[in-house]
Amino acid sequence: MQYALYYWTGIQGRGEFVRLALEDAGADYVDMARVHGDAVMQPFLDGHSEGAQPFAPPFLKAGRQVIAQVAAILDFLGPTLDLVPQAASRRMQALQWQLTIADLVAEVHDTHHPIAASKYYEDQKTEARARAAAMRGERLPKFLGYFEQVLKANGGRHPLREHSYVDLSLFQLLSGLDYMFPRRMQALWPTLPLLRALKDRVEQRPGIAAYLASERRLAFNTNGIFRHYPELDDGK
Amino acid sequence: MQYALYYWTGIQGRGEFVRLALEDAGADYVDMARVHGDAVMQPFLDGHSEGAQPFAPPFLKAGRQVIAQVAAILDFLGPTLDLVPQAASRRMQALQWQLTIADLVAEVHDTHHPIAASKYYEDQKTEARARAAAMRGERLPKFLGYFEQVLKANGGRHPLREHSYVDLSLFQLLSGLDYMFPRRMQALWPTLPLLRALKDRVEQRPGIAAYLASERRLAFNTNGIFRHYPELDDGK
Repeated sequence: MQYALYYWTGIQGRGEFVRLALEDAGADYVDMARVHGDAVMQPFLDGHSEGAQPFAPPFLKAGRQVIAQVAAILDFLGPTLDLVPQAASRRMQALQWQLTIADLVAEVHDTHHPIAASKYYEDQKTEARARAAAMRGERLPKFLGYFEQVLKANGGRHPLREHSYVDLSLFQLLSGLDYMFPRRMQALWPTLPLLRALKDRVEQRPGIAAYLASERRLAFNTNGIFRHYPELDDGK
Repeated sequence: MQYALYYWTGIQGRGEFVRLALEDAGADYVDMARVHGDAVMQPFLDGHSEGAQPFAPPFLKAGRQVIAQVAAILDFLGPTLDLVPQAASRRMQALQWQLTIADLVAEVHDTHHPIAASKYYEDQKTEARARAAAMRGERLPKFLGYFEQVLKANGGRHPLREHSYVDLSLFQLLSGLDYMFPRRMQALWPTLPLLRALKDRVEQRPGIAAYLASERRLAFNTNGIFRHYPELDDGK
């Protein structure tokens, strides 16, 4: 089946978590907005297309089915793309971990937009500085320490003891954090050896390596979720 | 099967979304922390219990399986408790909508804690006021207008055209918002007739009515996710 992925052009954003799964599996997909422009998403967002109305991109069209929300899309794709264990209980574990990644991603967004998503970063810079200190000092060690412990408890290489979309999402999360908080991550990496190794392994997977080297992989930038503003970073 | 629900005592919090599903279905469950104290959760959070380590409460123990994250727990319970349609595509729709509810719930929390979850509200009151204005003016109309439209597109009564855990979660969301933003919600309700009727219908379901009248239903308070601070509310 050919999948249609719908996500904003110009940024990696939340769409990248889906893109990595499709690329890793070598799935046949069209990145609709990149081909037809962002306007191609509007009928779906307005509820004028067939399938469930998405609240926001990314969403995926698979036949007549429209699925929104990154974790739901990955839960849907997982079995077909062989990116999740077959057993229902382990597929549920993958979903649980993906949702914890999603929680941190939402917090990452609000780090540079603590007051309002609709306002410019420049208009909430002071508040962003305060929030970034809490992110660096409390939230990153808590979330990343948790995933390090999950890896340790499951043989060290994969949260699910085999390759899954959770590995790909952890790779994207860690790559984004490396871009956003280079000084803080440099200080944290020595405490996260298993995550470090997982990130390196994912980067070398054939589908991922080819994707990262292609023009399809956009660079991180200050319009996306992970944004590098030097004033928000610090070693501690 | 008897389920064990683990969630902080003293607040409704995110645990309430799971509790409502269990109560509506008349499921056999023990609210573990209320019986044994919050400390009963620690071995799980420390990764010293069997099953997948949860990042945070709520989590559910079902036999040997431990499931964390509200949306994952409801996706797990849905088929067994007859709280989701049987077809995989419609179960996926339910998950997608539950995740959109979860997104708003996370934003609701950050409305009173825009800078750091670890700091007191009193230490981020000024920022909370600014964030609350964006929540009331932009986010609530956007999210609630979306769910009103979803109801309209699906026959008016249920997002999934039949009773599901999504109805219960919408009830909890709307109840929490009524408590947190009474003036704003009074102004919004006339624009949300289908959600208003859904909320009233859920409240009258036998399992829910009995639960709401019981001592098990804690009152909303200013320790939970939905917090009423008069200075954060306004009709617009």
